[in-house]
Amino acid sequence: MTGPPPDIAAARLAVRRALSDLAPGDLVLVACSGGPDSLALTAAAAFAAPRLGLRAGGVTVDHGLQEGSADRAAWVAAEMASLGLEPVESRTVAVDGGGGPEGAARSARYAALDAAAEACTAAAVLLGHTRDDQAETVLLGLARGSGARSLSGMPAVTGRYRRPFLGLDRRVVRSACDMMGLDAWQDPHNADPAYTRSRVRHDALPSLEAALGPGITPSLARTADLLRDDADALDLWAEEVRSRAGTEHEGQPALDVTELGGVPRAVRTRVLRRTALESGCPAGELTARHVAELERLVSAWRGQKHIPLPGGVRGWRTGKRIVLASGAASGRDAGE
Amino acid sequence: MTGPPPDIAAARLAVRRALSDLAPGDLVLVACSGGPDSLALTAAAAFAAPRLGLRAGGVTVDHGLQEGSADRAAWVAAEMASLGLEPVESRTVAVDGGGGPEGAARSARYAALDAAAEACTAAAVLLGHTRDDQAETVLLGLARGSGARSLSGMPAVTGRYRRPFLGLDRRVVRSACDMMGLDAWQDPHNADPAYTRSRVRHDALPSLEAALGPGITPSLARTADLLRDDADALDLWAEEVRSRAGTEHEGQPALDVTELGGVPRAVRTRVLRRTALESGCPAGELTARHVAELERLVSAWRGQKHIPLPGGVRGWRTGKRIVLASGAASGRDAGE
Repeated sequence: MTGPPPDIAAARLAVRRALSDLAPGDLVLVACSGGPDSLALTAAAAFAAPRLGLRAGGVTVDHGLQEGSADRAAWVAAEMASLGLEPVESRTVAVDGGGGPEGAARSARYAALDAAAEACTAAAVLLGHTRDDQAETVLLGLARGSGARSLSGMPAVTGRYRRPFLGLDRRVVRSACDMMGLDAWQDPHNADPAYTRSRVRHDALPSLEAALGPGITPSLARTADLLRDDADALDLWAEEVRSRAGTEHEGQPALDVTELGGVPRAVRTRVLRRTALESGCPAGELTARHVAELERLVSAWRGQKHIPLPGGVRGWRTGKRIVLASGAASGRDAGE
Repeated sequence: MTGPPPDIAAARLAVRRALSDLAPGDLVLVACSGGPDSLALTAAAAFAAPRLGLRAGGVTVDHGLQEGSADRAAWVAAEMASLGLEPVESRTVAVDGGGGPEGAARSARYAALDAAAEACTAAAVLLGHTRDDQAETVLLGLARGSGARSLSGMPAVTGRYRRPFLGLDRRVVRSACDMMGLDAWQDPHNADPAYTRSRVRHDALPSLEAALGPGITPSLARTADLLRDDADALDLWAEEVRSRAGTEHEGQPALDVTELGGVPRAVRTRVLRRTALESGCPAGELTARHVAELERLVSAWRGQKHIPLPGGVRGWRTGKRIVLASGAASGRDAGE
């Protein structure tokens, strides 16, 4: 008896491993765009789930951003049903949030997936990201220059979401898709240079590969894993320091300078960042540069004035304390 | 009175800041290849050092790898002397070490710079690396995929070496060089696609910039700084854990599994890596993959056999201990 071709076997094994901790009877939902990666995921889950005593359902999201997207969503849903998934759902969303076109579509998509998972009490939602998507995500994080967390890509498991293909080459997944005879949809956005990810995929990553060798994609994925571990460890350390350094100044949240001064800068900046976020700085606007300025209130104190932060927050030092508070609250100390 | 053009002022200020902690009378040596960055550094040091009460000397290294390199070294030395540096020295090295052509040249160069610094008891050696060199170094580290330390680029200060231009745009430094009327040498290696760094500079970085925007160079440099801080903090934590977890097994260095299991994976892997290095694994050969396998002796213990490591070292678990020892020493426990 011969088994399936290796690429199909690899896809099925990846799904099987990703689901091995679920309980018999649990429902897993495959999120499918109709593209080759998520279609291969759908077929692999349709194969693997029943063999683990699990049920596999599917959901597709119509972003309403392209001509004919409703028809396509109906086609994807029919395709999933024909592969044996049950229930299968198509959800329509309105993309109008902030964060650029890609960010807004992403937020709307995850909200719809969350709602679908809630509606049918799914134990897990499977996403079709491959190792190549991970490498692209790391490069996108690199452009932000905001440290380990932004370089740590997508985790294999986060909440109800699981990414069985995150360790697989896109080439393997696409080959599995072809060999299973699936007729995938090619999203024109993926080749549209108006999208940053598309430019990274089609220009930046190939040219990095040409300069640095074909190992760059796995290297980027490995970097993501290592830096995610680093970020987790340093966050833990920072939380411990924060509970020790946390104090107050005239009713405002404050941090003890001596405690902050006794730990490495990587920990100190994380404590300051987290406290600034809790004091009302919007996460997307608080940069490494802001945090570095706060940090100098500890390590390079020479009587600096208030440091203005996003969201109307200010940071300043008074004696042995760093205070982080809204502009209004800090007014009475102005020029101190 | 008008000051110098802004780019010249920026170069001089950068050198002034980098030297501000030295004592009057100290000698700083500028390492100069004759290229525009190090030539600008030479001129800026010739200007700034005397104003801080310091002496500025120079050294150039002839790698003997290119036709006419001896003549060029003599020309660079004369150029440095004409800019007012004293003493000025030219050192010839033989490039024959391992680590690829770039690595071997680099090792030989630093050995020569160290020898020159010792010979004239220099307090510091200045190197002309710019922020663009830093970004290239981060990309080169990315290709290794070996974590925060390999992404942390070059520090502004390391031992006797200082890099005053590390925060400056290469464009600014080159413009300063031009405006000071310096006639720099263009190293053909810098444009030779046989060299990885040259490919990164001329192909990979421009294409990343096209995909991700012009901020990518400063982002990479900022990433290096943040990840260097992270690596320093985690190394510190790992050292502390190592002194607590360190034990022995039949005269072999060993680590206590309970201690290792109580800290985050990023710390645990660093403890294991450091111990493996001390047990004789060559640093260049011990990969993240090896360390990950060792780590699974703690976090995913299911009776694994010996793990073979580079340099004839093996790692294995016996009871509540991880033992790291040379193959010979571990023989008697084989198959345990």
